[in-house]
Amino acid sequence: LFRFARLRPLSRRKQNPIPGDTVPKAVVSRLSLYLRELQRFVRGGGTTINSSQLGEILGITAAQVRKDFACFGQFGYPGIGYRCEELIAVIRGILGTDRIWPVALVGCGNLGQALLGYRGFGRQGFSVVLAFDSNPTMVGRTIGGLTIRDLSNLADDLAEYSVRMAILAVPASAAQQVVTQLVDAGITGILNFAPVTLSVPDMVTVAEVDLAIELEQLSFAVVKQLEKP
Amino acid sequence: LFRFARLRPLSRRKQNPIPGDTVPKAVVSRLSLYLRELQRFVRGGGTTINSSQLGEILGITAAQVRKDFACFGQFGYPGIGYRCEELIAVIRGILGTDRIWPVALVGCGNLGQALLGYRGFGRQGFSVVLAFDSNPTMVGRTIGGLTIRDLSNLADDLAEYSVRMAILAVPASAAQQVVTQLVDAGITGILNFAPVTLSVPDMVTVAEVDLAIELEQLSFAVVKQLEKP
Repeated sequence: LFRFARLRPLSRRKQNPIPGDTVPKAVVSRLSLYLRELQRFVRGGGTTINSSQLGEILGITAAQVRKDFACFGQFGYPGIGYRCEELIAVIRGILGTDRIWPVALVGCGNLGQALLGYRGFGRQGFSVVLAFDSNPTMVGRTIGGLTIRDLSNLADDLAEYSVRMAILAVPASAAQQVVTQLVDAGITGILNFAPVTLSVPDMVTVAEVDLAIELEQLSFAVVKQLEKP
Repeated sequence: LFRFARLRPLSRRKQNPIPGDTVPKAVVSRLSLYLRELQRFVRGGGTTINSSQLGEILGITAAQVRKDFACFGQFGYPGIGYRCEELIAVIRGILGTDRIWPVALVGCGNLGQALLGYRGFGRQGFSVVLAFDSNPTMVGRTIGGLTIRDLSNLADDLAEYSVRMAILAVPASAAQQVVTQLVDAGITGILNFAPVTLSVPDMVTVAEVDLAIELEQLSFAVVKQLEKP
């Protein structure tokens, strides 16, 4: 229990500060995959797992697994491997999904309204606390408990709710102009659903939503199915 | 040119049949990542790339890269590495995204309507040719050039358009019942937007859309930003 407490996110951040840009983007991506598989493993009754098992699940070598985690500290136990619940807590702490992030939804058309009903945001610790639209016929309407605002008071609205992240669900033609407004108003992270590449300052991160991987995996499976004798 | 022609999907499938379930799921996932990075590399002016470079971009070892491609055949040239355009064509052939797949959209609420306008499907070779909804007030309406049908004639409608894949955008409460209908009508691949785990026969593949990875990467970047002095 003592060891576990020492490894909780708050302590970890003090003892092993996240080494900024020195962690390769690919390693951070794999943290999400490790997390997914560890959670599945625990649901299946697992309690400890070693780097060979984790590597096998993800199709990478055990050495790669150990190297990935070594970017953030020392989490394994000799002869045991990793304690799953502990490793899950550590990874969620590194990824920052062990807390609640207030986020703003910008664009309340069909996609925006669908996203307001998407329960996955809550599961990942994202709480949509503000909704914006530029269409005067949308402003003032209440959807999913949120009253849609126009963008005229953006900076104050974001500051009032301590919002640093935005979900962008506007048409491609409007996206860049809205993003410039968001960045000026203090947004540092954007989940972009608009099918356009955004230009942002270095300190702002844009995560693109791209269904290509899911579509390709599906296509592969169907091809395989069709080719069976 | 001769070599390239020999490596086109049709020939490849004859010479190196896709070895069914022997290819680990993680390797198939990485094919999507290789494809993305190769396309980016080509846009930047690159023409050939070796396994070390590809590994570095993806944060895995060169040996892992070579092992991944070896699942499907021999694509590299000694002393040159991989010819990017050729490797892109090969990977698209393996994934099956080098052809057009007709797909059916099931569920035409906010999310379904947003998906009807999503251009990424077309870029990946998916063409939405049928749209279904169970709501009588939706049936008969035309959205994005498609007239919404009810599910009463599903098997015939799918057969008429040779549809094997469906995009599921119905409420979670209706999802399993609709999936059972789809499978009975001959659907073998489902892109699932409903936040629920579906039960399907072995020969049917379900790709879950899960924004967790994008959200986690965004959260990581914002945490890093906030922790900067």
